[in-house]
Amino acid sequence: MIAPAPTAVLLVTCPDRRGLVAGVSQFVLRHGGNIVDADQHADAESGTFFQRVELELEGLDLDRGQLEGAFLAEVAEPLGMSAEVRFSDEVARLAILASKEPHCLYDLLSRWRAGELAAEVAVVLSNHPDHADVSAFFGVPYHHLPTTPEARPAQEAAVLDVLEEHRIDLVVLARYMQVLGDAVVERHRSRIINIHHSFLPAFVGARPYHQAHARGVKIIGVTAHYVTPELDQGPIIEQDVVRVTHRDGIADMVRKGRDLEKTVLARAVRHHLGHRVIVDGRRTVVFGG
Amino acid sequence: MIAPAPTAVLLVTCPDRRGLVAGVSQFVLRHGGNIVDADQHADAESGTFFQRVELELEGLDLDRGQLEGAFLAEVAEPLGMSAEVRFSDEVARLAILASKEPHCLYDLLSRWRAGELAAEVAVVLSNHPDHADVSAFFGVPYHHLPTTPEARPAQEAAVLDVLEEHRIDLVVLARYMQVLGDAVVERHRSRIINIHHSFLPAFVGARPYHQAHARGVKIIGVTAHYVTPELDQGPIIEQDVVRVTHRDGIADMVRKGRDLEKTVLARAVRHHLGHRVIVDGRRTVVFGG
Amino acid sequence: MIAPAPTAVLLVTCPDRRGLVAGVSQFVLRHGGNIVDADQHADAESGTFFQRVELELEGLDLDRGQLEGAFLAEVAEPLGMSAEVRFSDEVARLAILASKEPHCLYDLLSRWRAGELAAEVAVVLSNHPDHADVSAFFGVPYHHLPTTPEARPAQEAAVLDVLEEHRIDLVVLARYMQVLGDAVVERHRSRIINIHHSFLPAFVGARPYHQAHARGVKIIGVTAHYVTPELDQGPIIEQDVVRVTHRDGIADMVRKGRDLEKTVLARAVRHHLGHRVIVDGRRTVVFGG
Amino acid sequence: MIAPAPTAVLLVTCPDRRGLVAGVSQFVLRHGGNIVDADQHADAESGTFFQRVELELEGLDLDRGQLEGAFLAEVAEPLGMSAEVRFSDEVARLAILASKEPHCLYDLLSRWRAGELAAEVAVVLSNHPDHADVSAFFGVPYHHLPTTPEARPAQEAAVLDVLEEHRIDLVVLARYMQVLGDAVVERHRSRIINIHHSFLPAFVGARPYHQAHARGVKIIGVTAHYVTPELDQGPIIEQDVVRVTHRDGIADMVRKGRDLEKTVLARAVRHHLGHRVIVDGRRTVVFGG
Repeated sequence: MIAPAPTAVLLVTCPDRRGLVAGVSQFVLRHGGNIVDADQHADAESGTFFQRVELELEGLDLDRGQLEGAFLAEVAEPLGMSAEVRFSDEVARLAILASKEPHCLYDLLSRWRAGELAAEVAVVLSNHPDHADVSAFFGVPYHHLPTTPEARPAQEAAVLDVLEEHRIDLVVLARYMQVLGDAVVERHRSRIINIHHSFLPAFVGARPYHQAHARGVKIIGVTAHYVTPELDQGPIIEQDVVRVTHRDGIADMVRKGRDLEKTVLARAVRHHLGHRVIVDGRRTVVFGG
Repeated sequence: MIAPAPTAVLLVTCPDRRGLVAGVSQFVLRHGGNIVDADQHADAESGTFFQRVELELEGLDLDRGQLEGAFLAEVAEPLGMSAEVRFSDEVARLAILASKEPHCLYDLLSRWRAGELAAEVAVVLSNHPDHADVSAFFGVPYHHLPTTPEARPAQEAAVLDVLEEHRIDLVVLARYMQVLGDAVVERHRSRIINIHHSFLPAFVGARPYHQAHARGVKIIGVTAHYVTPELDQGPIIEQDVVRVTHRDGIADMVRKGRDLEKTVLARAVRHHLGHRVIVDGRRTVVFGG
Repeated sequence: MIAPAPTAVLLVTCPDRRGLVAGVSQFVLRHGGNIVDADQHADAESGTFFQRVELELEGLDLDRGQLEGAFLAEVAEPLGMSAEVRFSDEVARLAILASKEPHCLYDLLSRWRAGELAAEVAVVLSNHPDHADVSAFFGVPYHHLPTTPEARPAQEAAVLDVLEEHRIDLVVLARYMQVLGDAVVERHRSRIINIHHSFLPAFVGARPYHQAHARGVKIIGVTAHYVTPELDQGPIIEQDVVRVTHRDGIADMVRKGRDLEKTVLARAVRHHLGHRVIVDGRRTVVFGG
Repeated sequence: MIAPAPTAVLLVTCPDRRGLVAGVSQFVLRHGGNIVDADQHADAESGTFFQRVELELEGLDLDRGQLEGAFLAEVAEPLGMSAEVRFSDEVARLAILASKEPHCLYDLLSRWRAGELAAEVAVVLSNHPDHADVSAFFGVPYHHLPTTPEARPAQEAAVLDVLEEHRIDLVVLARYMQVLGDAVVERHRSRIINIHHSFLPAFVGARPYHQAHARGVKIIGVTAHYVTPELDQGPIIEQDVVRVTHRDGIADMVRKGRDLEKTVLARAVRHHLGHRVIVDGRRTVVFGG
């Protein structure tokens, strides 16, 4: 398969006003670029404008190093935008954090090996020793960082060190059942994706399948979200659901939920890696999602 | 179309123990009956047994008046069951209560006219005058019972009177935005079905679509449940969901939700009318649901 | 509710090339317009570019009569585009055609009365007399055009006359079980939406629920599509599905299918009325769909 | 976790008639057994009765070797039933056959390791050499049986030998792209499950995602079915679907489809292993499915 030609992605957020779309597309045209995909959204409730523009690098009279500076100076600042520039051939470095349950870890590693994730899985980190063999099979370094209540600060520092050492761009909590410390969350804001095994905001907190069973819901779900300091409150990237009946005991819900957790987490990671997500306070815009 | 032969439905709840299935089926056989459908569920968490047995009346050596008594004496009491007996050709008398929004009301009336509901819509009741014409078109008496904060007790009494007068078996709250008084709820326990425009238990209370939008969920849903004195806490009969994106403003959520509300409420009403629902505390068993 | 400010919608199709997005947005800016929504799609397989641009009319230095001409002359012709211009406050005139089954007809009329369809239902047309009363209730003229095998050409001419007389913009086949003649289809190309009661292309032809039951599928579906001279082959606008089990006989499939038919047909009609659909040979692009 | 007490499962098919349910439950009671789950279905179209009864072995006055004989003699033969007896603690021996694409293979092996499949994966068999390492990692013997057009009969014989040698109870085609010979299919009738990457019966034959893309469907799906000599015509066990839009090229459909293939195949294998499937000509009854 021929690799697709590299592109740049402009991600823009600003108060909605006239001329935003034209301003961005004129910039691209002026510098010899070609827009291959563009999507925008003007949120009527908040009056905010979001845009994602993907352009070919070939033909552009700016090199990668110059593009962001030029865009900020010529477009973003005059029009009051906050903007980011990404490149499609950047290879994000991932850390996968897991606890006891291995299904999301296996699933992500399998997808990565199959070429489905445009990323480098740089490290697997766990508070359990169990996943060393699967990490070795997939050729990924494994860090076992056990947790004890008294050692929380030390463990948090160790996590930070590992992420630093491996120059991690994206942290994926693949059913990691420990609370990350605030220092980790702050350092990687909008760069940590968690899979929560409930259809948030229903059943926050512990044992959501038990809660769902007790409440007698007919559908259960899972939620992939960015991690923020407020537990289970971060911006939602993706959700999905599955039907249950009175025949489904808690163990059945857990099993059905596992399938959702794998696919929903993988979708969220793909959206993030494709530079398709803009965080908007407690919400997200997911272009083409 | 030939009407199907009338059947009786036995609905049974009891602590799980040996011989329950055999006890019921022997009773049917002993009296010359033929089981046409049977379903049961033993809930592992609570140790409770639920069963729904549908049998042909033809060939039975008991008439309708004798069946319940015989079943209670010969099976239910010896085995410690609580049991109900229903008949497939009973025509339940429905009251539909609506407020301003008409979509669920129209939908139920259309289904009823199309022969989809095995029931008689005996009365439409509303705190608004708007639906008199559609009720007249479908040939159903219409009661306009306006509400004012000071007249709550009087209105509640009037609702009770209307339900009494029309000998109502099932009350359907078709987007009825008033709280029914406790007297109504108590009198019709497990006989009032409400459609709530959120995926309960998320977004209880007012304006759930606004709450869902603010939280940035990627899926919204609706819930049909029996009404209990605790608001939005009754046993769930049926739920369904639809995907939303950042492009969906509150008005879009309201519109998408309306389609769910119609179908989910109709499904719940059909389950109830088919004698397929057994209430189990805060949960329901919905056989064949 | 304040009516939203009127907008124009540009719908563009052309071979993909550089500068298309910029060309359109510069045109809008040059004439003082403001883009409120824009979406495009470059189909990699066919190399075709599709765009939908929605702009405010206020502030534009062109009036409605001038906009299409100016866009064609300044943008579409130089860039080799085929283009259409629509206005958000155009009120399309609908004809609904129904046969025996009324559920889609009732549903569309109810939605129309509730303000959900930006259209005028100008006429209901049926080969059965049954729906005169419901049409009268909703205040829509009703034409009963009975069909007999020998009178096909005469009936086709009569249908054409009714559509002509009522200046119909969109024909909605709401479970109309007659084949429209080629003359009608040609005259209203991409302006006739049918709801087919199967998940096309599975189960083309007659009695799809019977076919689905015989084949033992676990999911059934329905399809809204534009009508073309080839039966059941037109471009698909929208589909949806519902799960079935061995417990669902043909009558249950018919009933479950009816709920899908109503919602899927209404969604397709809304997409069309919102100027969101571009036909691309046997396929459609549905923006924001 | 304490292993659940072992149960026997009776699977019954016969023409529908009076007394079937009672006959089976009396048999169980007479021998001191306790029914823990029972489900039946009388198919109105074909007049066939299906039943699945699960009973505790403890307390039964028959041992495993006697149960089937006693049931056949006392119930099945007098009532004209065809019947099978299975045991919940039987460990079925699985062969997984894969070609180039590894996602279903990895997924099944991961589920097996996680204890989700009540089976022993006895062998992996492929016409490609690629999966030796993953099979080794999971501790499963790997047979590489390359195919060439001229060597079809030899390869078929080799497959039969491997299945024989490993005493295989269930063959799982995990995206195995070779046609199994008739001898293999006949020898393992209703014991071979295939995952087809289309929503059958749509898009039979080669390259279904290409067909789906060309037809412009808005939903794609996959199908798990028993293999019969007629290609893609076997009884369907499970299906599922996912929504696509015009933005999804063929590669996106392939990727979305892979997620469905994994979960739908796993569900079908679980239904089979739980003795929940009865084949009924071209259809299946899936109890509790």
